[in-house]
Parts: sequence; structure tokens; C-alpha cells
Amino acid sequence: MRAIATHPGARGLNDDAAVLEVAHSALVLTHDMLIESVHYLPDDPPETVAWKLVAVNMSDLAAKGATPMGVLLGFTLTGDDAWERNFTAGLKVALDHFAVPLLGGDTVAMPPDTAGAAPRTLGLTAIGSAPSCGAPSRAGAKPGDRVFISGSIGDAGAGLALLQGEIEAKEAARAALIDAYRRPAPDLALGQALAPMVSAMADISDGLLIDADRMARASGCAIRIDLDAVSLSSAYIAAQGDDPASRLAAATAGDDYRLLFALAPAKEAALKALAEATGAALTRVGQCADGNGLKLRMEGRDMPLPERLGHEHDAAQKRAHR
Amino acid sequence: MRAIATHPGARGLNDDAAVLEVAHSALVLTHDMLIESVHYLPDDPPETVAWKLVAVNMSDLAAKGATPMGVLLGFTLTGDDAWERNFTAGLKVALDHFAVPLLGGDTVAMPPDTAGAAPRTLGLTAIGSAPSCGAPSRAGAKPGDRVFISGSIGDAGAGLALLQGEIEAKEAARAALIDAYRRPAPDLALGQALAPMVSAMADISDGLLIDADRMARASGCAIRIDLDAVSLSSAYIAAQGDDPASRLAAATAGDDYRLLFALAPAKEAALKALAEATGAALTRVGQCADGNGLKLRMEGRDMPLPERLGHEHDAAQKRAHR
Repeated sequence: MRAIATHPGARGLNDDAAVLEVAHSALVLTHDMLIESVHYLPDDPPETVAWKLVAVNMSDLAAKGATPMGVLLGFTLTGDDAWERNFTAGLKVALDHFAVPLLGGDTVAMPPDTAGAAPRTLGLTAIGSAPSCGAPSRAGAKPGDRVFISGSIGDAGAGLALLQGEIEAKEAARAALIDAYRRPAPDLALGQALAPMVSAMADISDGLLIDADRMARASGCAIRIDLDAVSLSSAYIAAQGDDPASRLAAATAGDDYRLLFALAPAKEAALKALAEATGAALTRVGQCADGNGLKLRMEGRDMPLPERLGHEHDAAQKRAHR
Repeated sequence: MRAIATHPGARGLNDDAAVLEVAHSALVLTHDMLIESVHYLPDDPPETVAWKLVAVNMSDLAAKGATPMGVLLGFTLTGDDAWERNFTAGLKVALDHFAVPLLGGDTVAMPPDTAGAAPRTLGLTAIGSAPSCGAPSRAGAKPGDRVFISGSIGDAGAGLALLQGEIEAKEAARAALIDAYRRPAPDLALGQALAPMVSAMADISDGLLIDADRMARASGCAIRIDLDAVSLSSAYIAAQGDDPASRLAAATAGDDYRLLFALAPAKEAALKALAEATGAALTRVGQCADGNGLKLRMEGRDMPLPERLGHEHDAAQKRAHR
């Protein structure tokens, strides 16, 4: 890790703590974990596990419009030296990609009798500086706002289903979908550009529907998602088709790491200009209204919510579903 | 956790990230993990595991003279609800004691087939503000500096040995030593008061000798520790006696979470005044000199270094020794 931690604030990983100079700013702080067999598959290449660990935390920063300042790594050693070496190489690639320095952390060996059997546990803390407009909240959506997502959804969920042998797809689509599962691509620059215009923003990590429901509940309004409007990739359609069932699967799959945001109608011209200037794919998928929680429409009709909206953080749910 | 995370920066644990306002300051950042059967015993009460998790991170902040601003928790659920409830209660006690808010983190369920068998993995990130004098480094010791520790050492190591049945002690000493193992007591106020006067400071987490060796190597000087001068508690002496072997055991035991610092002779009057004003127990245990690495004296004579200076972070060492 020392070869990676070259930022002066890391103090060469030789001190008790990292020291980071900050100007007049607010900090954005997040800590997300990856557990083997929960958040990634035991056979996933260690380089991509490192990528995912960094990316899921960068996704949280992107949703707050933050600029990354550094990360701290919590790393458990299980005695598989090749895995750990490849993880470290992948970590460097990911940190370079997101232009964020490794500042410190902790590396601990698992007890020898469990080192091979226990699922690997990885943690990353990311620190960012908030945008000057302030970090957008998940709780700011207002009736009348329009609801957008960045990119397409469902690819990562289909990639997981492919890896688990639950579905099949031709090679090109298969490779794209598995890559979406293993190497999520949060867009920090897009989050920074969106922050000043949105009413509310969150990342889509557990599924579009569950994350939209959380935004609605946090904001005290209703959010209606129109499944017909949701953007699907050509790889997703090649593997899963384009019908109500596949659209619902995409909207509840999780691991997308796209942005979900609410926007006042008066800001739509600015959003259009941003999309044209950057080429970002931004799709209107719904609407905020008076009321509470998530509403769903498809083929022009209101429809009942599915029993499962995505991956619950609740332990029992998670045990049941993943 | 929501009931604990009442700081506005935590955003009710309902957002992707925490947001912390900072004034003109430098940040001190640390992330330390606790692994069951490595850093604590499976039978340790969950309240004290929570205490230790917070305390070991506060110890890093204390060594940098920092004032805690917040923590992020990485928590794995194994399905033992009573354990997790008691851990959470203990977490609140510890956070209140150190006056530091819970800002966020991640809670994840272990895979169901391993939840009972895998050692529990806990991580905590602590963020603090550096003192206005700057955070003291481990690397600043200079030839001529005198070397001090706060408090006594060896109690926690003796507590672990008692819990593992390796040694015996009468009840009062036994209780005090086990408490030292389970509930380390880093002194943040002392670290803040020492920061402006020390040349170098670190916490003693892996053993006095190994941490002194690290300070010497980081500083490019020699540090000579005089084992006769090292302060032992009456509980330690009651359990282990006071002879060369017990002094060496105390100096290599680890888990002390005391402060180790180097001080220029010109600052010794200020240190004495601080000790008198606060009642802090500060003991001179050594001396910096030209040269490299750790030197050891006992009973007025130089002595060879023991094979093992403390708990190495290196995985192979850790596997062998803990």
C-alpha cells in the first residue's frame, strides 16, 4: 500500500493518522463496505473488486456533487497473497482513475483458522469537499419537480444474473453486462455539474425503485416512476428483452451506481444545456407530486408496487434476497 | 444506529454521505479495525468491544493532538441480535464519553452460511481537527530529546493473558487488568495539551518497544528505552511481579493506548507544569541520540533487543503471535 499512498497527507503510512489540509469548505464523508458473496462473487477478479470498492464510495460522493480528497482503506488479509497483490494493483488503477489519494487505513490478518473460510470484508472511507452550492440532499424533492436518472439501469443486475447462471446472453452483451456489475462507473464530474441545479440527488445503488422511494419518503412527497421511460442499454435488451417484466427487473436490480435527481421545471433548460455540452445521457423517468412514497406507472396506467423494490439494507431482507 | 446519529452532519443516516462543516483547519483521519479473535476475544462483552473500537481510533487522534469531529462505522451483522443491540448501546456510551458524533457508515449482513462461523469484522473511521500548532508527527524526534510515556504500560497485555488463562491474579488486580484490556482509555485532552510542546508523538498500540522503534526509524535517530524507568501499575505488579522479565513483558505487550512522545530538554519545564496542572502521570523512559532504531537498557546496562518487540502489523507476524 505504501507505494500507492504518495500524497503528503498520508505521511507515508508511517504515522497514526493522515493529515489533510482543507480550505473553507464542507466535507462529504462516506464509508461503504464490500463483503465477499454479498456484494461481489468469490470468483470476481481481485482487480475489479478493488475497482468496485472505490467506485461505490465515489458514487456516494458523486451524488453529493463532491470532489474526492482522499480515501482510507480497511483491508483484511486472508493469506491469499496473489489475490491481495492483484487487489492492490487494481486499487491503484481505480484511485488513479478517480484522481483520489490513498491517505491511510488499516490492514489486518484474519485469524489463521478462519482465514480461508471467512468471507473477505473490505471497507473504504471516502472524504470529499462539498460543492460551493452545498451538498444536495436526498430530502429536497418538491411536488412539481421532475425526476431524472443518468445513464441506463439494470445492466449490473443482469451481469450478476449471468454470472450466477440465472440467464444467458450472447458474448458481446454478456461481456458488457458483467463489466457493468464488476466495474460500476460513477460520474463525479456529472454530479458536480448537477449539484447546483437539482432539488435532491442520490445514487442508485440498491435499485431505482427503492432509491426513488427513499427520496420520496425523505422529501415528504410522492415520486411517480414511469417504467416505460426508464432507459435500458442495448446489451440489457439483448439479454433480457424489452417488456414490462424486464423493465421491472431493471428498476429493482441494484448495483447501477447511476444518479437519481429531482429538478424544478424552471431548471430544465439548464439541464438540457448541460446534457448537450457534456454528452451525458439524462432521462426523465418520473415526477414528484403531493403525497407520500413511490408510485409506479407502466403503459400509461398506474400499477401496484412490486413486493420487492430493490436490495434492502435491512439484514433479514438482504439475507433473503442476495 | 439512527438513535445515536443525531448530529446534523449525519443527515439522519438517510443520505448517501455525511456532510461536515469545517473551519480553517487541517483534518486528522484514521481508520482502525477490530477483528474477533485477533483484537478482542469472542467472549468479550459487546459493550466493551464497541468501547474498544471507538477508543483505539480516539487513541490515534490523541497522538496527533486532534479534537474529534465525527466517526463513520463499518458494522457486519452476523444474526446475533442481542450481541448487536448491546454493541450499539456500548457504542453510544463510548461516543458520549469521547464527545464525538456518529456521522454515518455502513451496516452489512454477512452471508447466511458464514454468519455464525466468520469472525466479526468491525471498522471505524475517525475524523478530527488538527491542533493549531499542527498535528505532531511520529517522525520529529531529534537527538537530545527526552522520551516520555503517559500512564503505565502492560496492564492490557496482562488482562489478555488472564483472560486466556496464561497467568493468574487475585480478584482486584484481575478486574483492573481485564478492564485495561477491554476498555482502553486514551486521553484526548492530554494529547491536545502535549501537541504544542512535543517533537514527535505516537500512541502505544502494539507495544512500547515496537512503537519506540518505529518513532526512532521514522525520525532517523536512535531511541534508548530504560526498562527500569518504565511505569507499571500496582495491579500489574500484583499479577506479574516487578523483575526484568515482567518489565520486558509490559514493554512488548501491546494494547496500552498510551502516549509516547519525544521532548526537547528546553520544554521540560512546560511539561512539568502541565503534569502538575492536570495530574497527568508522565514518565521519562528514554532518550533520543544519534544513531538508528531502538536501544534498550536495564539495571544500568545496555541489553540486546528481544526477538519480538510487540505486535507487528505484518500479517505473518500477527498470525504467529496473536
